[in-house]
Amino acid sequence: MVTFLAGGTGTPKLLSGDEPVFARDAVTVVGNTGDDVELGGLLVSPDVDTVLFDGGGVLDRETWWGIDGDTHETNDELFRIADAAGLETGPRYLPGDAQTAGREIARWRRFSGIAEFMTIGDRDRAVHVTRTSLLDEGHTLTEATRTLADAFDLEIDLLPMSDDPVATIVHTPDGEMHFQEYWVANRADPPVEEVEFRGADRAEPTPAVESALEAPVIVGPSNPVTSVGPIRALPGVDRALDRTPVVAVSPFCEDEAFSGPVADLMAGTGREPSTAGVAESYDFADAFVLDAADGTELDRPVVRTDTEIDGPADAERVARACALALVAAGASPVDLGLAVDDPAELDGDDIDTGDVPGLGGEQ
Amino acid sequence: MVTFLAGGTGTPKLLSGDEPVFARDAVTVVGNTGDDVELGGLLVSPDVDTVLFDGGGVLDRETWWGIDGDTHETNDELFRIADAAGLETGPRYLPGDAQTAGREIARWRRFSGIAEFMTIGDRDRAVHVTRTSLLDEGHTLTEATRTLADAFDLEIDLLPMSDDPVATIVHTPDGEMHFQEYWVANRADPPVEEVEFRGADRAEPTPAVESALEAPVIVGPSNPVTSVGPIRALPGVDRALDRTPVVAVSPFCEDEAFSGPVADLMAGTGREPSTAGVAESYDFADAFVLDAADGTELDRPVVRTDTEIDGPADAERVARACALALVAAGASPVDLGLAVDDPAELDGDDIDTGDVPGLGGEQ
Repeated sequence: MVTFLAGGTGTPKLLSGDEPVFARDAVTVVGNTGDDVELGGLLVSPDVDTVLFDGGGVLDRETWWGIDGDTHETNDELFRIADAAGLETGPRYLPGDAQTAGREIARWRRFSGIAEFMTIGDRDRAVHVTRTSLLDEGHTLTEATRTLADAFDLEIDLLPMSDDPVATIVHTPDGEMHFQEYWVANRADPPVEEVEFRGADRAEPTPAVESALEAPVIVGPSNPVTSVGPIRALPGVDRALDRTPVVAVSPFCEDEAFSGPVADLMAGTGREPSTAGVAESYDFADAFVLDAADGTELDRPVVRTDTEIDGPADAERVARACALALVAAGASPVDLGLAVDDPAELDGDDIDTGDVPGLGGEQ
Repeated sequence: MVTFLAGGTGTPKLLSGDEPVFARDAVTVVGNTGDDVELGGLLVSPDVDTVLFDGGGVLDRETWWGIDGDTHETNDELFRIADAAGLETGPRYLPGDAQTAGREIARWRRFSGIAEFMTIGDRDRAVHVTRTSLLDEGHTLTEATRTLADAFDLEIDLLPMSDDPVATIVHTPDGEMHFQEYWVANRADPPVEEVEFRGADRAEPTPAVESALEAPVIVGPSNPVTSVGPIRALPGVDRALDRTPVVAVSPFCEDEAFSGPVADLMAGTGREPSTAGVAESYDFADAFVLDAADGTELDRPVVRTDTEIDGPADAERVARACALALVAAGASPVDLGLAVDDPAELDGDDIDTGDVPGLGGEQ
């Protein structure tokens, strides 16, 4: 068994190989829900849904969100109505008292659906309606996610990090805003002063997540602040990561980020925006996968390969590197649910395991 | 000025003439909201929306609900998801505690959106999202409706009957159910034992409605029980109707209903399912428009014409008959906002005003 911690792009890409390195039924993905919002009354779970849609074979892999070929009739009409009625577009964060009314899980992240600022496709929307309705019928987010996973024939086990509300709030000189407002509406432009995981101190990881964190863990090349940060902010998660073998894939090549606002968010929260900064922040990590061109010296085993993921072959290569690094970190190859019998078969010219112990025939 | 009381089909049809009998800016429509439901978190107002869409030139006039040419991607996907996940279809009325949680206005009529049992189109859905979001932003239903009327360029003034929750609940031998469950899901099949307007005793007509009821009123050929009944159930409405000239168009030709479940609902609530029963129930009505073939003798002035409305010309003819009947009922032609100077111009071979007083040159 192996557990991935996932944000919205890096880790889903890592999971997108055609040939699984880990048997799919041995994989659990814990998805960040700090990015979730309630938009026009619907709970939208962007990070969980990217894994859901990719696992279901319907993800738009150009954008890494939404359903491939989806239509946008409702979203278009929402803009037409807003325009015709003279309503202001852009994120419309609901008034303070509305933020803590209604569904508990949507606290501190409730946006009006007028001129819907996140582009929700029509089929995509059905997922949010089903999820939200399952919650309204009395199910937990974990149960709702399992039902959706059934509907999309997922082979992996997909878990939201918590059934409680946690809202990623970015503090900027212009005031605080939910992560989606910072990222989708403001294109990560406002300077970051602080990132808050509102509610995390009162939230709990679910029992399913606690159990998943007993398996070896792969932290994909996701944003350490806003993708992995909310998961880590839950009580007990860092302690659980300390106790199990963990490999992390750096989202940097030295101090060059592969994508997204990761550098600004690292710097804004007092971390060095680099592989070294990630390694310092991930004190629970027992090994790392770094890009072949990343010369950062770390105090833990490192496996190097080209970590840019631009397709299934890249995903498989980096996943193989993760498996090798996990073995180096002390995970038992037998327990990992590898799709091959001998982990040495995972190695190749495209991966540099350096002189890390425990690989191949050596264990 | 003239005010129409509207359900979902009869009165909207009456308003659908190409050439207005009443100047459009002289018309107010008070829409029944007892049929409204919250479906998958969205407040759907079927009766108000039919008037909204027809006034905006986008109504599907085959069905008299929804937007002409709308797509149904989300609704289709909701069924696919429910089927793939083994979720039961049909109306999923939320549990008791959820009925009085959340938005006040959605009380006693909250349905899960799983396998959405009312067919909501994709553009249609944008209307519900906008309405619901305006409510969540703190606006009243009246304000939200005005904003939507702006977005659809409505010339008439469209008012929901109340900003408070009123839910039309049909009691049957199999238990109680919301009107939409009775009508859309069960095709009006269950025997009707009682019709309850839950919340009406605590609800208020809005000030805008109270003001509109000071003008002469036309009660279109709508269902007296479930279309007009919820409006009448609001405190003070019947008294207001007593004080102003009112003409009602019978939805029957003698004891033959033109359409819908009106006969069952009249009989189930102890009324005679006929024009005579309607006249008895509408004790506030000062005049009636009956079908040319309807020989019912009434104790109030009657204008007869072919009251079946199958197109704009039919709508204009019945509207002319209503205007003539209103004048017979004592309304001042000048105040009515007629599109012609002399009400006698409204008369013709296709209308039989009998010997009712006050028409044409006589007033």
